[in-house]
Amino acid sequence: MPLTRVSLRQGKSAAYRTAILDGVYRGMRETLEVLEEDRLMVISAHEEDTFRHSATYLIIKRSDALVVIQLTVSNTRTVEKKQALFRKIVENLAADPGLRPEDIFINLVEVLPENWSFGNGIAQYVAA
Amino acid sequence: MPLTRVSLRQGKSAAYRTAILDGVYRGMRETLEVLEEDRLMVISAHEEDTFRHSATYLIIKRSDALVVIQLTVSNTRTVEKKQALFRKIVENLAADPGLRPEDIFINLVEVLPENWSFGNGIAQYVAA
Amino acid sequence: MPLTRVSLRQGKSAAYRTAILDGVYRGMRETLEVLEEDRLMVISAHEEDTFRHSATYLIIKRSDALVVIQLTVSNTRTVEKKQALFRKIVENLAADPGLRPEDIFINLVEVLPENWSFGNGIAQYVAA
Repeated sequence: MPLTRVSLRQGKSAAYRTAILDGVYRGMRETLEVLEEDRLMVISAHEEDTFRHSATYLIIKRSDALVVIQLTVSNTRTVEKKQALFRKIVENLAADPGLRPEDIFINLVEVLPENWSFGNGIAQYVAA
Repeated sequence: MPLTRVSLRQGKSAAYRTAILDGVYRGMRETLEVLEEDRLMVISAHEEDTFRHSATYLIIKRSDALVVIQLTVSNTRTVEKKQALFRKIVENLAADPGLRPEDIFINLVEVLPENWSFGNGIAQYVAA
Repeated sequence: MPLTRVSLRQGKSAAYRTAILDGVYRGMRETLEVLEEDRLMVISAHEEDTFRHSATYLIIKRSDALVVIQLTVSNTRTVEKKQALFRKIVENLAADPGLRPEDIFINLVEVLPENWSFGNGIAQYVAA
Protein backbone atom coordinates (compact mmCIF):
# COMPACT_ATOMS: atom_id res chain seq x y z
CA MET A 1 0.00 0.00 0.00
CA PRO A 2 2.19 2.84 -1.12
CA LEU A 3 1.42 6.29 0.22
CA THR A 4 2.62 8.85 -2.32
CA ARG A 5 3.59 12.45 -1.55
CA VAL A 6 4.44 14.70 -4.48
CA SER A 7 5.88 18.21 -4.07
CA LEU A 8 6.28 20.70 -6.91
CA ARG A 9 6.04 24.37 -7.74
CA GLN A 10 2.69 26.11 -8.10
CA GLY A 11 1.31 27.22 -11.45
CA LYS A 12 0.64 23.95 -13.21
CA SER A 13 -2.75 22.79 -14.47
CA ALA A 14 -4.89 20.11 -12.89
CA ALA A 15 -4.28 17.99 -16.00
CA TYR A 16 -0.52 18.27 -15.47
CA ARG A 17 -0.81 17.20 -11.84
CA THR A 18 -3.13 14.35 -12.78
CA ALA A 19 -0.65 13.11 -15.39
CA ILE A 20 2.06 13.01 -12.73
CA LEU A 21 -0.04 11.04 -10.27
CA ASP A 22 -1.24 8.67 -12.98
CA GLY A 23 2.33 8.09 -14.18
CA VAL A 24 3.63 7.35 -10.70
CA TYR A 25 0.71 5.03 -9.99
CA ARG A 26 1.21 3.09 -13.24
CA GLY A 27 4.92 2.87 -12.50
CA MET A 28 4.17 1.25 -9.13
CA ARG A 29 1.63 -1.10 -10.68
CA GLU A 30 4.08 -2.14 -13.39
CA THR A 31 7.10 -2.81 -11.19
CA LEU A 32 6.06 -3.41 -7.56
CA GLU A 33 3.04 -5.65 -8.07
CA VAL A 34 0.87 -3.01 -6.50
CA LEU A 35 -2.77 -4.08 -6.74
CA GLU A 36 -5.29 -2.24 -8.87
CA GLU A 37 -7.16 0.32 -6.77
CA ASP A 38 -4.27 0.49 -4.29
CA ARG A 39 -4.00 4.22 -4.65
CA LEU A 40 -3.43 7.01 -2.17
CA MET A 41 -1.62 10.11 -3.39
CA VAL A 42 -1.23 13.66 -2.14
CA ILE A 43 0.27 16.67 -3.93
CA SER A 44 1.60 19.88 -2.39
CA ALA A 45 2.18 22.81 -4.74
CA HIS A 46 4.63 25.41 -3.47
CA GLU A 47 5.58 28.98 -4.12
CA GLU A 48 9.22 29.59 -4.94
CA ASP A 49 10.36 30.49 -1.44
CA THR A 50 8.86 27.33 0.07
CA PHE A 51 10.37 24.92 -2.46
CA ARG A 52 14.12 25.28 -2.61
CA HIS A 53 16.53 23.17 -4.57
CA SER A 54 19.99 23.50 -5.99
CA ALA A 55 20.17 24.06 -9.76
CA THR A 56 22.61 21.21 -10.14
CA TYR A 57 23.33 18.05 -8.21
CA LEU A 58 26.11 15.74 -9.32
CA ILE A 59 25.79 15.92 -13.11
CA ILE A 60 22.05 16.58 -12.99
CA LYS A 61 20.79 19.97 -14.14
CA ARG A 62 17.43 20.79 -12.59
CA SER A 63 14.79 23.24 -13.75
CA ASP A 64 11.92 24.84 -11.86
CA ALA A 65 9.76 21.96 -13.07
CA LEU A 66 11.49 19.68 -10.53
CA VAL A 67 9.09 17.13 -9.03
CA VAL A 68 9.84 15.47 -5.70
CA ILE A 69 8.17 12.08 -5.24
CA GLN A 70 8.33 10.43 -1.83
CA LEU A 71 6.76 6.98 -1.56
CA THR A 72 6.15 5.19 1.72
CA VAL A 73 6.13 1.46 0.97
CA SER A 74 6.54 -1.87 2.74
CA ASN A 75 10.13 -3.09 3.04
CA THR A 76 9.60 -6.10 0.80
CA ARG A 77 11.26 -5.13 -2.48
CA THR A 78 14.67 -6.04 -3.88
CA VAL A 79 17.15 -3.47 -5.14
CA GLU A 80 16.32 -4.59 -8.68
CA LYS A 81 12.61 -3.88 -8.15
CA LYS A 82 13.43 -0.43 -6.83
CA GLN A 83 15.63 0.30 -9.82
CA ALA A 84 12.86 -0.85 -12.15
CA LEU A 85 10.41 1.43 -10.31
CA PHE A 86 12.64 4.48 -10.71
CA ARG A 87 13.16 3.80 -14.42
CA LYS A 88 9.47 3.24 -15.08
CA ILE A 89 8.28 6.34 -13.22
CA VAL A 90 10.73 8.48 -15.19
CA GLU A 91 9.71 6.84 -18.46
CA ASN A 92 6.04 7.47 -17.70
CA LEU A 93 6.46 11.11 -16.63
CA ALA A 94 8.75 11.89 -19.56
CA ALA A 95 5.95 10.69 -21.85
CA ASP A 96 3.20 12.57 -19.97
CA PRO A 97 3.22 15.40 -18.87
CA GLY A 98 6.58 15.57 -20.61
CA LEU A 99 8.98 16.05 -17.70
CA ARG A 100 12.73 16.15 -18.23
CA PRO A 101 14.22 13.02 -16.60
CA GLU A 102 16.60 15.28 -14.67
CA ASP A 103 13.59 16.90 -12.99
CA ILE A 104 12.28 13.74 -11.35
CA PHE A 105 13.52 13.10 -7.81
CA ILE A 106 12.30 9.92 -6.11
CA ASN A 107 12.75 8.69 -2.54
CA LEU A 108 11.41 5.54 -0.88
CA VAL A 109 10.62 5.35 2.84
CA GLU A 110 10.29 1.70 3.83
CA VAL A 111 8.20 0.43 6.74
CA LEU A 112 7.28 -2.95 8.16
CA PRO A 113 4.13 -4.51 6.64
CA GLU A 114 2.56 -4.47 10.13
CA ASN A 115 2.71 -0.64 10.05
CA TRP A 116 -0.33 -0.20 7.79
CA SER A 117 -4.03 -0.01 8.53
CA PHE A 118 -5.92 0.53 5.27
CA GLY A 119 -9.24 1.01 7.06
CA ASN A 120 -11.44 -0.31 9.86
CA GLY A 121 -8.63 -0.15 12.42
CA ILE A 122 -7.15 -3.45 11.28
CA ALA A 123 -3.48 -4.12 10.49
CA GLN A 124 -4.36 -6.01 7.32
CA TYR A 125 -0.89 -7.49 6.76
CA VAL A 126 -0.76 -9.10 10.21
CA ALA A 127 -2.08 -12.66 10.15
CA ALA A 128 -5.40 -12.96 12.00
CA MET B 1 7.53 11.60 20.52
CA PRO B 2 5.14 10.92 17.68
CA LEU B 3 5.04 13.43 14.85
CA THR B 4 1.58 13.27 13.28
CA ARG B 5 0.73 14.25 9.69
CA VAL B 6 -2.95 14.20 8.67
CA SER B 7 -4.11 14.69 5.09
CA LEU B 8 -7.75 15.15 4.09
CA ARG B 9 -9.98 17.02 1.67
CA GLN B 10 -10.74 20.70 2.11
CA GLY B 11 -14.11 21.97 3.24
CA LYS B 12 -14.33 20.74 6.81
CA SER B 13 -14.71 22.97 9.86
CA ALA B 14 -11.99 23.76 12.37
CA ALA B 15 -14.01 21.79 14.95
CA TYR B 16 -13.97 18.75 12.67
CA ARG B 17 -10.20 18.97 12.22
CA THR B 18 -9.69 19.49 15.94
CA ALA B 19 -11.76 16.40 16.71
CA ILE B 20 -9.55 14.34 14.41
CA LEU B 21 -6.32 15.56 16.01
CA ASP B 22 -7.72 15.09 19.50
CA GLY B 23 -8.87 11.56 18.69
CA VAL B 24 -5.52 10.55 17.24
CA TYR B 25 -3.68 12.05 20.20
CA ARG B 26 -5.87 10.27 22.74
CA GLY B 27 -5.42 7.04 20.79
CA MET B 28 -1.66 7.35 21.09
CA ARG B 29 -1.88 8.23 24.77
CA GLU B 30 -4.13 5.24 25.47
CA THR B 31 -2.10 2.60 23.62
CA LEU B 32 1.52 3.70 23.17
CA GLU B 33 2.25 5.17 26.58
CA VAL B 34 2.76 8.54 24.98
CA LEU B 35 3.28 11.15 27.67
CA GLU B 36 0.82 13.94 28.32
CA GLU B 37 1.87 17.05 26.44
CA ASP B 38 3.79 14.96 23.91
CA ARG B 39 1.89 16.48 21.03
CA LEU B 40 2.98 17.66 17.60
CA MET B 41 0.46 17.41 14.80
CA VAL B 42 0.10 18.93 11.36
CA ILE B 43 -2.88 18.83 8.98
CA SER B 44 -2.90 19.43 5.24
CA ALA B 45 -6.29 20.02 3.61
CA HIS B 46 -6.39 19.30 -0.13
CA GLU B 47 -8.52 20.11 -3.11
CA GLU B 48 -9.84 17.15 -5.05
CA ASP B 49 -7.12 17.06 -7.69
CA THR B 50 -4.33 17.06 -5.12
CA PHE B 51 -5.78 14.24 -2.97
CA ARG B 52 -6.36 11.15 -5.04
CA HIS B 53 -7.50 7.78 -3.80
CA SER B 54 -9.22 4.74 -5.19
CA ALA B 55 -12.89 4.35 -4.24
CA THR B 56 -12.28 0.81 -3.07
CA TYR B 57 -9.30 -1.06 -1.74
CA LEU B 58 -9.60 -4.73 -0.87
CA ILE B 59 -13.07 -4.88 0.65
CA ILE B 60 -12.92 -1.32 1.95
CA LYS B 61 -15.26 1.26 0.39
CA ARG B 62 -13.89 4.77 0.78
CA SER B 63 -15.73 8.07 0.64
CA ASP B 64 -14.41 11.58 0.04
CA ALA B 65 -14.14 11.91 3.83
CA LEU B 66 -11.05 9.67 3.75
CA VAL B 67 -8.47 10.72 6.32
CA VAL B 68 -4.81 9.72 5.92
CA ILE B 69 -2.87 9.61 9.19
CA GLN B 70 0.90 9.13 9.05
CA LEU B 71 2.68 8.88 12.38
CA THR B 72 6.45 9.00 12.78
CA VAL B 73 7.28 7.12 15.99
CA SER B 74 10.22 5.41 17.67
CA ASN B 75 10.67 1.76 16.73
CA THR B 76 9.93 0.47 20.20
CA ARG B 77 6.41 -0.95 19.94
CA THR B 78 5.22 -4.53 19.51
CA VAL B 79 2.82 -5.62 16.81
CA GLU B 80 0.13 -5.91 19.47
CA LYS B 81 0.64 -2.28 20.53
CA LYS B 82 0.36 -1.15 16.93
CA GLN B 83 -2.84 -3.13 16.47
CA ALA B 84 -4.25 -1.59 19.64
CA LEU B 85 -3.31 1.88 18.36
CA PHE B 86 -5.09 1.34 15.05
CA ARG B 87 -8.24 0.07 16.77
CA LYS B 88 -8.31 2.91 19.28
CA ILE B 89 -7.79 5.68 16.74
CA VAL B 90 -10.65 4.32 14.65
CA GLU B 91 -12.86 3.98 17.71
CA ASN B 92 -12.12 7.56 18.73
CA LEU B 93 -12.67 9.08 15.27
CA ALA B 94 -15.85 7.09 14.71
CA ALA B 95 -17.20 8.62 17.91
CA ASP B 96 -16.03 12.16 17.06
CA PRO B 97 -16.18 13.65 14.43
CA GLY B 98 -18.15 10.58 13.31
CA LEU B 99 -15.89 9.13 10.61
CA ARG B 100 -16.72 5.85 8.92
CA PRO B 101 -14.08 3.27 9.97
CA GLU B 102 -13.44 2.56 6.28
CA ASP B 103 -12.34 6.17 5.83
CA ILE B 104 -9.45 6.00 8.29
CA PHE B 105 -6.07 5.11 6.79
CA ILE B 106 -3.11 4.87 9.18
CA ASN B 107 0.58 4.37 8.51
CA LEU B 108 3.49 4.25 10.95
CA VAL B 109 7.02 5.34 10.02
CA GLU B 110 9.44 4.01 12.62
CA VAL B 111 12.77 5.61 13.48
CA LEU B 112 15.52 4.98 16.01
CA PRO B 113 15.06 6.76 19.36
CA GLU B 114 18.33 8.62 18.72
CA ASN B 115 16.69 10.30 15.70
CA TRP B 116 14.72 12.84 17.75
CA SER B 117 15.62 16.24 19.12
CA PHE B 118 12.60 17.73 20.92
CA GLY B 119 14.30 21.07 21.45
CA ASN B 120 17.58 22.72 22.46
CA GLY B 121 19.60 20.70 19.94
CA ILE B 122 19.79 17.69 22.24
CA ALA B 123 19.02 14.07 21.26
CA GLN B 124 17.00 13.50 24.41
CA TYR B 125 16.79 9.70 24.08
CA VAL B 126 20.56 9.29 23.91
CA ALA B 127 22.09 8.70 27.35
CA ALA B 128 24.16 11.68 28.46
CA MET C 1 20.80 13.47 -0.31
CA PRO C 2 18.68 14.77 2.49
CA LEU C 3 15.10 15.68 1.74
CA THR C 4 14.02 18.39 4.18
CA ARG C 5 10.44 19.13 5.25
CA VAL C 6 9.85 22.13 7.48
CA SER C 7 6.49 22.91 9.10
CA LEU C 8 5.70 26.15 10.92
CA ARG C 9 2.93 28.66 11.51
CA GLN C 10 1.91 31.15 8.86
CA GLY C 11 2.69 34.83 9.07
CA LYS C 12 6.45 34.90 8.71
CA SER C 13 8.35 36.71 5.97
CA ALA C 14 10.08 35.07 3.03
CA ALA C 15 13.40 36.21 4.54
CA TYR C 16 12.57 34.41 7.78
CA ARG C 17 11.74 31.19 5.95
CA THR C 18 14.86 31.51 3.83
CA ALA C 19 17.01 31.93 6.93
CA ILE C 20 15.57 28.70 8.35
CA LEU C 21 16.24 26.71 5.19
CA ASP C 22 19.73 28.16 4.85
CA GLY C 23 20.55 27.36 8.48
CA VAL C 24 19.35 23.77 8.21
CA TYR C 25 21.26 23.29 4.96
CA ARG C 26 24.48 24.68 6.43
CA GLY C 27 24.00 22.48 9.48
CA MET C 28 23.82 19.40 7.26
CA ARG C 29 26.84 20.51 5.24
CA GLU C 30 28.86 21.12 8.39
CA THR C 31 28.10 17.85 10.18
CA LEU C 32 26.91 15.18 7.73
CA GLU C 33 29.38 15.72 4.88
CA VAL C 34 26.49 16.66 2.64
CA LEU C 35 27.85 17.84 -0.72
CA GLU C 36 27.52 21.40 -1.91
CA GLU C 37 24.44 21.75 -4.11
CA ASP C 38 22.82 18.73 -2.42
CA ARG C 39 19.73 20.69 -1.54
CA LEU C 40 16.04 19.87 -1.63
CA MET C 41 13.82 21.57 0.92
CA VAL C 42 10.09 22.14 1.27
CA ILE C 43 8.23 24.35 3.74
CA SER C 44 4.58 24.16 4.77
CA ALA C 45 3.14 27.15 6.61
CA HIS C 46 0.06 26.39 8.70
CA GLU C 47 -2.80 28.24 10.29
CA GLU C 48 -3.25 27.68 13.98
CA ASP C 49 -5.85 24.95 13.77
CA THR C 50 -3.72 22.86 11.40
CA PHE C 51 -0.50 23.05 13.46
CA ARG C 52 -1.07 21.79 16.96
CA HIS C 53 1.51 21.33 19.64
CA SER C 54 1.65 21.18 23.39
CA ALA C 55 2.98 24.30 25.10
CA THR C 56 5.45 22.22 27.08
CA TYR C 57 7.18 18.93 26.54
CA LEU C 58 9.48 17.54 29.20
CA ILE C 59 11.21 20.69 30.44
CA ILE C 60 10.92 22.44 27.08
CA LYS C 61 8.65 25.49 26.84
CA ARG C 62 7.45 26.05 23.29
CA SER C 63 6.12 29.20 21.70
CA ASP C 64 4.05 29.67 18.55
CA ALA C 65 7.33 30.10 16.67
CA LEU C 66 7.91 26.35 16.93
CA VAL C 67 9.60 24.95 13.83
CA VAL C 68 9.33 21.25 12.97
CA ILE C 69 12.18 19.95 10.82
CA GLN C 70 11.93 16.43 9.39
CA LEU C 71 14.91 15.21 7.40
CA THR C 72 14.90 12.05 5.30
CA VAL C 73 18.52 10.86 5.09
CA SER C 74 20.50 7.73 4.30
CA ASN C 75 21.09 5.43 7.28
CA THR C 76 24.84 5.93 7.27
CA ARG C 77 25.49 8.29 10.20
CA THR C 78 26.66 7.53 13.72
CA VAL C 79 24.85 8.73 16.84
CA GLU C 80 27.62 11.29 17.32
CA LYS C 81 27.06 12.72 13.83
CA LYS C 82 23.34 13.03 14.52
CA GLN C 83 24.00 14.80 17.81
CA ALA C 84 26.39 17.19 16.06
CA LEU C 85 23.73 17.86 13.41
CA PHE C 86 21.08 18.71 16.02
CA ARG C 87 23.45 21.05 17.86
CA LYS C 88 24.57 22.80 14.69
CA ILE C 89 21.07 23.34 13.30
CA VAL C 90 19.98 24.89 16.58
CA GLU C 91 23.08 27.07 16.73
CA ASN C 92 22.47 28.28 13.17
CA LEU C 93 18.77 29.01 13.63
CA ALA C 94 19.34 30.75 16.97
CA ALA C 95 21.73 33.09 15.15
CA ASP C 96 19.42 33.64 12.17
CA PRO C 97 16.44 34.14 12.12
CA GLY C 98 16.83 34.21 15.90
CA LEU C 99 14.78 31.20 17.00
CA ARG C 100 14.64 30.13 20.62
CA PRO C 101 16.44 26.74 20.93
CA GLU C 102 13.32 25.36 22.64
CA ASP C 103 11.35 26.05 19.45
CA ILE C 104 13.39 23.80 17.20
CA PHE C 105 12.11 20.25 16.82
CA ILE C 106 14.14 17.89 14.63
CA ASN C 107 13.41 14.35 13.46
CA LEU C 108 15.43 12.10 11.16
CA VAL C 109 13.84 9.43 8.97
CA GLU C 110 16.55 7.05 7.76
CA VAL C 111 16.38 5.03 4.56
CA LEU C 112 18.72 2.69 2.68
CA PRO C 113 21.07 4.41 0.21
CA GLU C 114 19.45 2.37 -2.59
CA ASN C 115 16.16 4.20 -1.89
CA TRP C 116 17.13 7.40 -3.72
CA SER C 117 16.94 8.44 -7.34
CA PHE C 118 18.22 12.01 -7.71
CA GLY C 119 17.21 12.22 -11.37
CA ASN C 120 17.16 10.31 -14.64
CA GLY C 121 15.51 7.25 -13.08
CA ILE C 122 18.81 5.94 -11.73
CA ALA C 123 19.47 4.73 -8.18
CA GLN C 124 22.75 6.64 -7.98
CA TYR C 125 24.01 4.96 -4.80
CA VAL C 126 23.71 1.46 -6.26
CA ALA C 127 26.95 0.32 -7.90
CA ALA C 128 26.56 0.05 -11.68
